[in-house]
Amino acid sequence: MEPFRPALKPGQKHAIVIGGGFGGLAAAKRLSRSPGLLRVSLIDQRNHHLFQPLLYQVATAGLNPSDIAVPIRTQFSEEPEVSVHLGRVENIDLEQKFVEGKGGVRIAYDYLIVATGAQHSYFGKEGWEDFAPGLKTVEQATEIRRRVLSAFEAAENEPDPTEQHALLNFVIVGGGPTGVELAGAIADLARTVLVKDFRRINPADARVTLIEAGPRVLAAFDEDLSHQAATDLGSLGVEVRVDQRVDNIDANGVRFGNEFIPSRSVFWAAGVTANVVTRTLGVPVDRAGRVMVEPDLSIPGHPEAFVIGDAAHLEIDGQLVPGLAPAAIQEGRLAADNILALTSGAATQTFRYVDKGTMATIGKHKAIGQRGRMKLHGYIAWVAWLFVHVFLLTGFKNRVQVFLEWTWSYLFSRRGARLITTRDWHTHAPAAGTLRTPTDSSPGLRAAERDEVLA
Amino acid sequence: MEPFRPALKPGQKHAIVIGGGFGGLAAAKRLSRSPGLLRVSLIDQRNHHLFQPLLYQVATAGLNPSDIAVPIRTQFSEEPEVSVHLGRVENIDLEQKFVEGKGGVRIAYDYLIVATGAQHSYFGKEGWEDFAPGLKTVEQATEIRRRVLSAFEAAENEPDPTEQHALLNFVIVGGGPTGVELAGAIADLARTVLVKDFRRINPADARVTLIEAGPRVLAAFDEDLSHQAATDLGSLGVEVRVDQRVDNIDANGVRFGNEFIPSRSVFWAAGVTANVVTRTLGVPVDRAGRVMVEPDLSIPGHPEAFVIGDAAHLEIDGQLVPGLAPAAIQEGRLAADNILALTSGAATQTFRYVDKGTMATIGKHKAIGQRGRMKLHGYIAWVAWLFVHVFLLTGFKNRVQVFLEWTWSYLFSRRGARLITTRDWHTHAPAAGTLRTPTDSSPGLRAAERDEVLA
Repeated sequence: MEPFRPALKPGQKHAIVIGGGFGGLAAAKRLSRSPGLLRVSLIDQRNHHLFQPLLYQVATAGLNPSDIAVPIRTQFSEEPEVSVHLGRVENIDLEQKFVEGKGGVRIAYDYLIVATGAQHSYFGKEGWEDFAPGLKTVEQATEIRRRVLSAFEAAENEPDPTEQHALLNFVIVGGGPTGVELAGAIADLARTVLVKDFRRINPADARVTLIEAGPRVLAAFDEDLSHQAATDLGSLGVEVRVDQRVDNIDANGVRFGNEFIPSRSVFWAAGVTANVVTRTLGVPVDRAGRVMVEPDLSIPGHPEAFVIGDAAHLEIDGQLVPGLAPAAIQEGRLAADNILALTSGAATQTFRYVDKGTMATIGKHKAIGQRGRMKLHGYIAWVAWLFVHVFLLTGFKNRVQVFLEWTWSYLFSRRGARLITTRDWHTHAPAAGTLRTPTDSSPGLRAAERDEVLA
Repeated sequence: MEPFRPALKPGQKHAIVIGGGFGGLAAAKRLSRSPGLLRVSLIDQRNHHLFQPLLYQVATAGLNPSDIAVPIRTQFSEEPEVSVHLGRVENIDLEQKFVEGKGGVRIAYDYLIVATGAQHSYFGKEGWEDFAPGLKTVEQATEIRRRVLSAFEAAENEPDPTEQHALLNFVIVGGGPTGVELAGAIADLARTVLVKDFRRINPADARVTLIEAGPRVLAAFDEDLSHQAATDLGSLGVEVRVDQRVDNIDANGVRFGNEFIPSRSVFWAAGVTANVVTRTLGVPVDRAGRVMVEPDLSIPGHPEAFVIGDAAHLEIDGQLVPGLAPAAIQEGRLAADNILALTSGAATQTFRYVDKGTMATIGKHKAIGQRGRMKLHGYIAWVAWLFVHVFLLTGFKNRVQVFLEWTWSYLFSRRGARLITTRDWHTHAPAAGTLRTPTDSSPGLRAAERDEVLA
């Protein structure tokens, strides 16, 4: 079947951008600046752009999903040349120049930007995902939130001390920024937010363990900052275990080395891989599925097709361009500029990465930051992080709201989104909690509880 | 097995409150005022108290779930005599005085308040629920939001004009406050919020139909207000169909009388019934499962057990106490006061209902309100509604946030929570959207689209 080609004005070309993340959004915005020359179709499998660096705050009840998610569509309300399509691209044909969705629907392009980003990889152990969700989507964030909050609720009701301890063990696998921020935020949630609200357990007894395969956490930072981060995590009560490879994760807990941590709340921040669609291109990819792009971000042999962001592998002076939002945005803009150059017969430009620096928070009041040789840590880094992130948030309203949420939580140690929701919305769906009582408890715990009550 | 009885101080009694809605929360708060005399266990199957009157705003992307939901636990941070338990009560034994959860867990009480509220009833057609979710829980609200927003997305991508029209048909069954508010909010969403964001469809073409079995909408209000509401709905573009009984709802649409409306978005606001647990009491209930209570809200023959709110049936001077939040709160307080009276050997009091009035919004700028003989309608009623609801919201922060959300949406015709989320959080879960193109479209629509593009 002939691929569909949207109606074009005379002389107009059709550009498809796949993916509405930082890179894809920047690319489509830039492409829309050329009135008349291009019609742009932005395709994403979700209706919203997500400010991923703050997703850990949704997972720990600090922010609402919609505080960090905006409809992609509203970003282009004023750009009539850009149409937004909700859908998933499953295949790309670089030779015949079309993208293909489920059921064989095909759309032809003249220019293409692949900005499909990354997803979690369990290194072939996909079965671990049920017991250790990752943190890439809104759904995963609310699932983690549900598990974290439910664990404290279940522990409060749990008569068996062994199971109660397991319920209060939180394990995060992967010591990159996501793992560190999630571990810090869970520790902080337990120690400062939940601490007053329970009667039988002390939420501050929660044990948070961060497991990292490499020799240090936050390996993308300089060694001194990375050690500073590990120290700060320790003072928050997070146990940092480096040089540890996870052997197994199941319903009982996590096994690594000679150790086993019984846990009902394991979270995955260990590995990412490019979205599977890059493997349909039939061009060389690296081990993580990222396309080996030319210096102008185009696909070798296909000057009209570009790959950007976490889907692209580009080395500059032997250094891989990092998987950070600023890099994706810069690549998105350059890929769009190169398409605009091609439409006017000009030469494309080589990508040059401007290092905007990188930051990570550790709990509520500390962070580390690095930009070239400039380094920051502690409270001042946290304040810098706050400003940078509030200002980077897409959309004025979200900024105000996130700022309010944070001010509130900072002043009162509360979290605004402590909501346990279930996946089934039906009237007779199973409830979030099962009624447990110390009825079936060991005598020890009952005595302890009686003491507490009589105290 | 002997029911579990929590450890009590000498002379202390154990009161159980089932349900953390308006009534249950008010009752537990009041019970906690008697330091030492009572230990209180508040049991709810969810971790949050929900401000249900604003749930329709979550369903239509105006508010975040957590704007109208607060953890029940935090309401009792400062009341050590109150423990909060996440769990579902499945059975109540009035003779032996215990409540029973799943798996046979039993907890003994000396005093009981049943505040289990109402849920949707499909009048024996439970199979309709899949095609017509109701609006009682956060999960149902986000499911409706997902369906509404996805319908516009699917219509934008839909090549077949018949299916496209079906996707833009929204049908609400039930003309009470929930149905009216939901219908008005969907019409408003389509006409003022989404209208700029689509290229192929005009969201303002959405057809919203409200089907009511009785002779008029909002039958709890005086006839003139009810007609005013119908007129206001009409000017918002909502088609109001009274005296119509729904014969069938399935994946294709809704059949009523001799008519059929093809629709992918049918919502249920027609019937409620008391939570099923009231039927385990073995005492007389009305047709909706509500317990026929004594004038002091106790269960006949069981002076230590009370039923309040939507779970109770009480007539005063031949008038049923209405299923409204203020009534539930007043009943909760009286039931608690009566328990406190019983602990000191005093006589219980008869419930007297103070009518605080009732209101309903119609779209963004209109409302009707009635309190005794005082009636309001139009813009002034809407402003009154706004103030009343912002101030009734539990928790100061939520008030500020909801007020900000509304100011924002009022000034800019935006909605803050236009988020389509799916139920499955797994990495390889099916995407929210399926890529469709006009490839398979009828020639008519393709031509129409070309005209639009070339215009």
